Amino acid sequence: MNIDGKPYRTIWLGADGVSAEIIDQTKLPFALEIVALCTLEDAAHAIASMQVRGAPLIGATAAYGVALAMADDASDAGLARACEVLAATRPTAVNLRWALDEMVAELQPLPADARVAGAFARAAEICDEDVETCRRIGEHGVGLIEAHAAHKGGETVNILTHCNAGWLATVDWGTALAPIYQAFDRGVPVHVWVDETRPRNQGASLTAFELGAHGVPHTIVADNAGGHLMQAGLVDLCLVGTDRTTANGDVANKIGTYLKALAAKDNGVQFFVALPHSTIDWTLEDGADIPIEQRDPGEVTHMTGQLPGGQVATVAVAPPGSHAANYAFDVTPRGS
Amino acid sequence: MNIDGKPYRTIWLGADGVSAEIIDQTKLPFALEIVALCTLEDAAHAIASMQVRGAPLIGATAAYGVALAMADDASDAGLARACEVLAATRPTAVNLRWALDEMVAELQPLPADARVAGAFARAAEICDEDVETCRRIGEHGVGLIEAHAAHKGGETVNILTHCNAGWLATVDWGTALAPIYQAFDRGVPVHVWVDETRPRNQGASLTAFELGAHGVPHTIVADNAGGHLMQAGLVDLCLVGTDRTTANGDVANKIGTYLKALAAKDNGVQFFVALPHSTIDWTLEDGADIPIEQRDPGEVTHMTGQLPGGQVATVAVAPPGSHAANYAFDVTPRGS
Repeated sequence: MNIDGKPYRTIWLGADGVSAEIIDQTKLPFALEIVALCTLEDAAHAIASMQVRGAPLIGATAAYGVALAMADDASDAGLARACEVLAATRPTAVNLRWALDEMVAELQPLPADARVAGAFARAAEICDEDVETCRRIGEHGVGLIEAHAAHKGGETVNILTHCNAGWLATVDWGTALAPIYQAFDRGVPVHVWVDETRPRNQGASLTAFELGAHGVPHTIVADNAGGHLMQAGLVDLCLVGTDRTTANGDVANKIGTYLKALAAKDNGVQFFVALPHSTIDWTLEDGADIPIEQRDPGEVTHMTGQLPGGQVATVAVAPPGSHAANYAFDVTPRGS
Repeated sequence: MNIDGKPYRTIWLGADGVSAEIIDQTKLPFALEIVALCTLEDAAHAIASMQVRGAPLIGATAAYGVALAMADDASDAGLARACEVLAATRPTAVNLRWALDEMVAELQPLPADARVAGAFARAAEICDEDVETCRRIGEHGVGLIEAHAAHKGGETVNILTHCNAGWLATVDWGTALAPIYQAFDRGVPVHVWVDETRPRNQGASLTAFELGAHGVPHTIVADNAGGHLMQAGLVDLCLVGTDRTTANGDVANKIGTYLKALAAKDNGVQFFVALPHSTIDWTLEDGADIPIEQRDPGEVTHMTGQLPGGQVATVAVAPPGSHAANYAFDVTPRGS
């Protein structure tokens, strides 16, 4: 998608042909900084420190990490070490392990002197495949938005989204936001209600940033606001992503998704989940089987942002020593 | 209620008998500062700058404001001026105008030389009446909590609350929190899930502060978490306050209340609204008639808290120039 009119992906081959470049997402939304990844360690650091995040982008970065490692040591031992280092960065990321397996399957049969070229080629392919998957999610979903636009006689279609399921979480397009970008690019009048998405504020920071950079009209709201917006007829449809979907169609996504789905049901508002096949976990029968990760309570009691002087700082928003809990996901039961 | 074992109200007569003292709530939860109100202007400033907030406490402060004015000028003109100055501080606060009317009704018939004593006496009475109202809300509600405790065989009763409907919003006890304080004081094991309550964070700051100061076990959660907590069986009942309740029982309360009510309904969790009679607006038939105030969008895009050095600062959490909307309340339809 575009940033101020210039097309970007979240990761791409460097101009020298032997490095990768990324947008440092820890600096968003206050600064756009491009970081060059030149070594295996650079790639591992980018994943571990969340300079890149989102399952597809983590996988793509790991693939480039293997390619960077091959440029240094293309032996079997070098390949094994690269996978070990990268797999340790985010132990629970399914897509990360998938990408490493893909790279090993590609490189193992090759002689060492063909592995660097092979690795960079496969990493590029993994990126292109993700872009194509997301583009097709957009193509699949854009009709939903166009139908609302037709029904409203060309009036603006209001879409509510939660968290960041946009191009910053993938290589390009995003999942939930892909249909919105395609609608916008086709000239369909759209406006996005962006849930700020506490406690990590991915909506207020990342989703608002990427929509704004591409030029898509949007408004940030507190997570508390969606119910009122739907009661007031200000939401035509909800579009969200998912971290894991079970065999029966139950959807685990960022905490708070379930509350918006309840409000959508109560107000007769359409609610869609945009996902690639890879997000479906066929080994789990239903949502009750999904373990809900708890994260650092400090994400609830403290908030990071930009001081008036431009410096980024973290402030406490709760009484010192307060006890907090930080559930990362909830489960939205399939439609009934 | 207690702060570190010492009983407090939110407003009380100063030791000199001709001033009032308040807890400066703009300094909470990071500092407990007592401010003396010695003049009409002090009282007006306390209300306008939100050193005091919550309808009952605003009313009580206005009553003391009239008393302070009488000490300076007990003439009819002085009384009229006091009412004018105080009424202008928060133009939409119904309770403020009610308290001023009470004071005028009390003082108008009195000779000027009896007005100072009369005004301080009536202000104290207004405070005592509020305390008694809230105490009785607690008495009325504590049985709900005790019933859960009995049903659970003495296991901890988990109560979810939204925003701050505690003693800091009233003179003492609070509304939604009054039954919880009474249960706690009787030795019933309780634990409160405190919604942080974006965008002004009254839960994370005020509710967590007052529960902690009195010793009531509690955990701050993001507003997004309540649905998951109820799905997981971690909430026995919800208790909230209300800003305005219509004749048919629809409840306007802090934005996000409706979403929690939907989750309670979906999970078979009891949901109660604690309110004094004065909050019922008999002139409105149902919730659709309640205008929903929009506040400064900066409350969504910026966050105030304490820097590691102890200084209070405001940080931006959204991209510069982002558009945001800030709906203050939503309407929860009466139970069906």
